[in-house]
Amino acid sequence: MSSLRQDPLTGRWVIIAGQRHGRPNDFRDSLRKVSTQPPASPACPFCPGNEDQTPPEVMVIGRASHLPANGPGWGVRVVPNKYPAVHPVSGNSESTLLQPQGPAEGGHEVIICCPDHQASLGTLPHEHLEEILQVVRRRIKDLGEKEPSARYVLAFGNHGPDAGATLAHAHLQVITTPVVPAAVVEKTENFIRHREETNQCLLCETSAKEEAEGTRLIAANDSWVASTPWASRFPCEMRLIPRRHCSSMLECSEAELKDLAGLLSLCLKRLENHRSGAGYNLIIHNAALAAADGRGYGNERLDSMKGNTPDLFHWHVEILPRLSRQAGFEAGTGFAINSLPPEEAAVILRPERSLK
Amino acid sequence: MSSLRQDPLTGRWVIIAGQRHGRPNDFRDSLRKVSTQPPASPACPFCPGNEDQTPPEVMVIGRASHLPANGPGWGVRVVPNKYPAVHPVSGNSESTLLQPQGPAEGGHEVIICCPDHQASLGTLPHEHLEEILQVVRRRIKDLGEKEPSARYVLAFGNHGPDAGATLAHAHLQVITTPVVPAAVVEKTENFIRHREETNQCLLCETSAKEEAEGTRLIAANDSWVASTPWASRFPCEMRLIPRRHCSSMLECSEAELKDLAGLLSLCLKRLENHRSGAGYNLIIHNAALAAADGRGYGNERLDSMKGNTPDLFHWHVEILPRLSRQAGFEAGTGFAINSLPPEEAAVILRPERSLK
Repeated sequence: MSSLRQDPLTGRWVIIAGQRHGRPNDFRDSLRKVSTQPPASPACPFCPGNEDQTPPEVMVIGRASHLPANGPGWGVRVVPNKYPAVHPVSGNSESTLLQPQGPAEGGHEVIICCPDHQASLGTLPHEHLEEILQVVRRRIKDLGEKEPSARYVLAFGNHGPDAGATLAHAHLQVITTPVVPAAVVEKTENFIRHREETNQCLLCETSAKEEAEGTRLIAANDSWVASTPWASRFPCEMRLIPRRHCSSMLECSEAELKDLAGLLSLCLKRLENHRSGAGYNLIIHNAALAAADGRGYGNERLDSMKGNTPDLFHWHVEILPRLSRQAGFEAGTGFAINSLPPEEAAVILRPERSLK
Repeated sequence: MSSLRQDPLTGRWVIIAGQRHGRPNDFRDSLRKVSTQPPASPACPFCPGNEDQTPPEVMVIGRASHLPANGPGWGVRVVPNKYPAVHPVSGNSESTLLQPQGPAEGGHEVIICCPDHQASLGTLPHEHLEEILQVVRRRIKDLGEKEPSARYVLAFGNHGPDAGATLAHAHLQVITTPVVPAAVVEKTENFIRHREETNQCLLCETSAKEEAEGTRLIAANDSWVASTPWASRFPCEMRLIPRRHCSSMLECSEAELKDLAGLLSLCLKRLENHRSGAGYNLIIHNAALAAADGRGYGNERLDSMKGNTPDLFHWHVEILPRLSRQAGFEAGTGFAINSLPPEEAAVILRPERSLK
């Protein structure tokens, strides 16, 4: 039978409907596998040798000092997005009650994860993934400080066409927005509510409970707990929560970053093993930046929340696999239907289960 | 240059980023066309002759009275969903602060739109579409009255695999939920706020303004206005608003229903003409059902809204085309990026533009 579950972090309800798994599907093969992705092409702007096809790099890891900038030899390379969704400077635009708007001011960068066109985050060595995470942390810090309008800095990745990727070569993106995204506002609201009701942090409690209960636990290490959320919206959705309460990746220690690399690698490998080439989105959720110096706009709801202090948020990492399509019910209502209960997903994803 | 727009109805922000249209895409062909959908198959449970593959019908239009029930001869056929997301009766489940849940109680029906396996809502004659809408209205009414737990009745359609359809044969779905979907809660909140600030209905004002301004207008008739929303989340997103303020399709007159069929047909034809076989979701947004007789649960936020009266909501119809993929940014934040400004989409969709 189905059940209806609410995610206490997002406030959203999900219908967990395991029995719908077996229904007929005329389009069963319509979810593309990344294995059908184009092979390394001489035209890939992220491949070594094609550095002139991107804007000049803003940061690089691993290139020997005698080699010239914007040429091969790098391990991780950061460039401004050539087709940015937000811009360093933008004009003012008139806002009305029926047509609210504001300038799309901000920074938008691309982190090219590795020189190898065929690699993915799940196949890279831990040590390299750790270097990538160090770069992500640095870009979140730099962009947040550099962009005068930024109220949020989001780091995310799209893997495969079903997850919205447009280029196959492994990359992450970091973007700043003047408006704090609705998901962050809702989570902040629920962190406040839970703190008021219990004097505890919602994710401190959740990670401890998931580890103790074990039914949705995927894996854990010294500083992180990975589980399938109670009210998972997507089959095999995963949430990685740091044990130590802190509001942002910027406060993460080197040991915590190393542990995150290990756990993330394990989770993505398990997903790949379950469904080779599955598309997924990777999202790093930090607290919003403080309202200071007239930063941003459209954040009245967030800024009026009683009890909202910068250290209230508990940062975390989400993996949203695209093993099923979002349909009209989800798109139109925000009300997800998930046909794989998270308890079953955890069994699939757990490392104890022997690899295929 | 990009701009950031807020939808006053949903409260959600969208980055309108026209210049991203031209960026490279390794997966350009990954959005499936319905033209690749399987042809009529002897196994289609919605085709005439296969009526025994669905649960017994609850309503039928067009079958001559001398023909037996659950056999061919129908024009529109309604059956319970064989794989329902919600159930007529369900047990109780323990809810806690960290793991809120409730029974997935409700009704879930399928409206098989026509006998023809190859037809779509956009290709059916107006008169038939009007009959389908009459059936939709009737099922919304019946399910809302019949299901003791229902706080919302949603009617929607998924067209094509990119829009989440699992069966190719044209059909709509009607489902009741004990929890009012988040999108309806947010819209209700914004109807209240706009009413408080201006003493006007947000969608009465919007439809009048869209018609007067014309830049986002697609078409209008005696009782409906169709336009691309100011802060469209999807390329070619469309919103159809009835001129007369009423809160639900149940209050819709016969003339208004006939006009809706005409305008909906035009909009879907235009979409098909622009991008043959594009996937889309169709959603009918009505007001939530009143909190009475202990109906539903999880609706504290909605029910505590000051100024929330049943007639406040202005019902409307949304068409959400799936011409692009939702990526990590959207999935993780609720913050959409749309690379086709709605003013350009309206030019494409307007009937004055000659058909290809």
